[in-house]
Amino acid sequence: MTKRIVVTGGAGFIGSNICRRLVNEGHHVICVDNFQSSRKENIEELLKLDNFEFIEHDIINSLEGKVTGINQIYNLACAASPPVYQKDPIHTLETCFIGMSNMLKLARANNATILQASTSEVYGDPLVHPQPESYRGNVNPIGIRACYDEGKRITETLMFDYHRAYNVDIRVARIFNTYGPWMHPYDGRVVSNFIRQVLMGEDLTIYGTGSQTRSFQYIDDLVEGLYRLMNNDKGFHGPCNLGNPNEFTIKELADLVIEKMPGSTKLIHKELPSDDPTQRKPVIETAAAQLNGWEPKIQLKEGLDKTIAYFSGLNMSDYKPFV
Amino acid sequence: MTKRIVVTGGAGFIGSNICRRLVNEGHHVICVDNFQSSRKENIEELLKLDNFEFIEHDIINSLEGKVTGINQIYNLACAASPPVYQKDPIHTLETCFIGMSNMLKLARANNATILQASTSEVYGDPLVHPQPESYRGNVNPIGIRACYDEGKRITETLMFDYHRAYNVDIRVARIFNTYGPWMHPYDGRVVSNFIRQVLMGEDLTIYGTGSQTRSFQYIDDLVEGLYRLMNNDKGFHGPCNLGNPNEFTIKELADLVIEKMPGSTKLIHKELPSDDPTQRKPVIETAAAQLNGWEPKIQLKEGLDKTIAYFSGLNMSDYKPFV
Ligand SMILES: NC(=O)c1ccc[n+]([C@@H]2O[C@H](COP(=O)([O-])OP(=O)(O)OC[C@H]3O[C@@H](n4cnc5c(N)ncnc54)[C@H](O)[C@@H]3O)[C@@H](O)[C@H]2O)c1
Ligand SMILES: NC(=O)c1ccc[n+]([C@@H]2O[C@H](COP(=O)([O-])OP(=O)(O)OC[C@H]3O[C@@H](n4cnc5c(N)ncnc54)[C@H](O)[C@@H]3O)[C@@H](O)[C@H]2O)c1
Ligand SMILES: O=c1ccn([C@@H]2O[C@H](COP(=O)(O)OP(=O)(O)O)[C@@H](O)[C@H]2O)c(=O)[nH]1
Ligand SMILES: O=c1ccn([C@@H]2O[C@H](COP(=O)(O)OP(=O)(O)O)[C@@H](O)[C@H]2O)c(=O)[nH]1
Ligand SMILES: O=c1ccn([C@@H]2O[C@H](COP(=O)(O)OP(=O)(O)O)[C@@H](O)[C@H]2O)c(=O)[nH]1
Ligand SMILES: O=c1ccn([C@@H]2O[C@H](COP(=O)(O)OP(=O)(O)O)[C@@H](O)[C@H]2O)c(=O)[nH]1
Repeated sequence: MTKRIVVTGGAGFIGSNICRRLVNEGHHVICVDNFQSSRKENIEELLKLDNFEFIEHDIINSLEGKVTGINQIYNLACAASPPVYQKDPIHTLETCFIGMSNMLKLARANNATILQASTSEVYGDPLVHPQPESYRGNVNPIGIRACYDEGKRITETLMFDYHRAYNVDIRVARIFNTYGPWMHPYDGRVVSNFIRQVLMGEDLTIYGTGSQTRSFQYIDDLVEGLYRLMNNDKGFHGPCNLGNPNEFTIKELADLVIEKMPGSTKLIHKELPSDDPTQRKPVIETAAAQLNGWEPKIQLKEGLDKTIAYFSGLNMSDYKPFV
Repeated sequence: MTKRIVVTGGAGFIGSNICRRLVNEGHHVICVDNFQSSRKENIEELLKLDNFEFIEHDIINSLEGKVTGINQIYNLACAASPPVYQKDPIHTLETCFIGMSNMLKLARANNATILQASTSEVYGDPLVHPQPESYRGNVNPIGIRACYDEGKRITETLMFDYHRAYNVDIRVARIFNTYGPWMHPYDGRVVSNFIRQVLMGEDLTIYGTGSQTRSFQYIDDLVEGLYRLMNNDKGFHGPCNLGNPNEFTIKELADLVIEKMPGSTKLIHKELPSDDPTQRKPVIETAAAQLNGWEPKIQLKEGLDKTIAYFSGLNMSDYKPFV
């Protein structure tokens, strides 16, 4: 059945990939974005399609009356990269709390299912490793990352309270670091930074020693997981980790990028930002059990090749830093 | 110097005690409350004073234009007892986030110092015991207490971001369980429940085994701590625990109340609510060091006597349950 689906943050990295998947499956997609961390180029091809609509809008303002007859909402609107979400932390908090309040009201009014792009950051700098969904986290509530970490925690709280109070059908995905085509070259995350730096002949910036770890998930695996979570017919609400459990140090990632890309760039060290988590790796048993055997299929080497190919096709002078 | 001071939640238990202290010191107090968990009786005597104003208002709506020339804001508005804050969890969350946003805007516009009544609940069900301010907590973000625990965490985040972004002068107190005169007999907290139950000839309700602990602080000690935190001239922003480090099990508290109050009531057990913390006790070294040697002076036995005397003077039929 063809559905009417709202994707907030739909012009962003993950959002535009989801929009492409949904229009390809024949759904009618209403993309909502204010372009604060993305460019129209991400959805240029989509804008030509009959089953794709775009609304330029900040979700901290209500969408009431602007969209109707909605079946599903993917709520992805939120700056996602530390330098970007820290640029205007109060707006990041408002996007999380007020934006999510607005979307929950829309879901309730339309009897729609609503999925939230939550994050591994709800675990903060985890003392339990790897992280299952039951882990309650280690977040500094007053630090410079808190606008994002606490912001995402409170959206989960709001969702479960709307679910308990009004039976809104919610889906909570806790997404671990994801990379791939349609990332913005200047959004400041480590994979996009390293590839862009090599392409532009700059040095690769390692923050701290580079011994901190992350688990990198390729975008297609994430999109598949989000799609399954949204459409699971068990009434499974989550929270559900979606990530690739293969863990790498940032130094290993840098070495891999240099190995794959010709050019003479070298590693330089910069200061580690405060509250930067030292390790991160998902337990994905819940996703496997609840989402029909979901597991990541594309490992880092292959995913990097695809991402490098995408970035190599961009004209870097079209892009400008956000911060 | 006489100050103009806003006290939100000023008709409540802690709020009305603060209002009394402030008017006695000669300040001009503007009390803001929507009476959702209090009665006008708490401020009846104050309403006769020239240096006391009352505005009936829900802080999730802006106060802009309604109050001017403010020097200080004590932000206490928020349901505080689990059954009361869980009655409308979405409103509790909005009081925390939107209410605090409104108050921070007011503080910023007036160049006022703003103090938030945060809570030991930001530590959740603590795995570190006793709790120093550096402990990051063990909060379930999707449980039934989360509207309060996560709500209070996000207000702290918002405050520190307003401080960093706009240099708003903030004060964050993390208050541990507090009791005393002007508590509402039906607000559902353990001290008020036990005393009211004996006075009304009902059985004392122990949730779970009664082996969970709390540290009970008498209201006058808290008011002194809040006053010192607000007025400290070191620019100390907190967060700062304010509590009494003497720890009791709930069973011990019940025995003490029965010992002190004549009457034939007996203990009965009810189910332990979900996510009820098993232990709680503050480290108060920060308060001692930063607030001129502050420490609690009134211990449980003496405080209970004063509280029993207060409750004994009430006409219980004037009061009705909230939930
Ligand atoms: N990429 C990751 O590794 C990752 C990990 C965990 C969670 N997430 C979450 O996934 C979502 C998408 O992230 P992304 O990596 O695609 O980042 P992105 O920055 O590429 O996309 C976010 C999009 O949201 C838009 N946006 C931000 N605030 C908005 C607002 N108030 N109103 C309307 N639009 C707004 C931005 O303009 C952008 O197009 C975010 O919610 C993010 O927190 C991403
Ligand atoms: N008493 C404690 O043990 C304790 C412990 C930690 C923190 N606190 C905090 O201290 C503050 C006061 O608690 P209390 O024990 O006096 O509780 P209380 O319920 O007696 O007082 C709260 C007051 O706030 C008012 N209020 C609630 N929501 C409001 C809103 N949206 N707009 C306007 N007024 C509103 C209520 O009507 C009430 O008068 C609360 O913020 C609470 O979270 C209390
Ligand atoms: O140019 C960069 C960008 C990031 N990082 C580090 O890479 C890790 C992942 O950073 P990213 O911003 O991609 O994601 P997050 O910290 O949110 O997981 C962190 O430890 C960063 O400090 C780095 O070393 N160099
Ligand atoms: O990103 C993906 C996509 C597919 N699968 C696996 O591929 C199988 C078939 O996937 P799906 O159910 O989407 O395809 P269908 O069989 O319905 O065409 C699933 O059971 C999963 O084990 C996966 O693990 N990750
Ligand atoms: O009638 C009551 C009310 C509360 N409690 C317990 O007493 C403790 C303190 O409860 P309160 O609501 O006063 O404060 P909080 O749980 O927020 O610390 C908790 O373990 C409650 O389960 C109880 O045994 N009987
Ligand atoms: O609730 C209180 C009130 C007072 N004090 C102690 O009492 C002393 C004097 O208190 P305060 O500074 O308020 O009185 P002042 O000496 O200024 O009249 C302080 O140093 C504290 O050690 C305390 O510990 N808790």
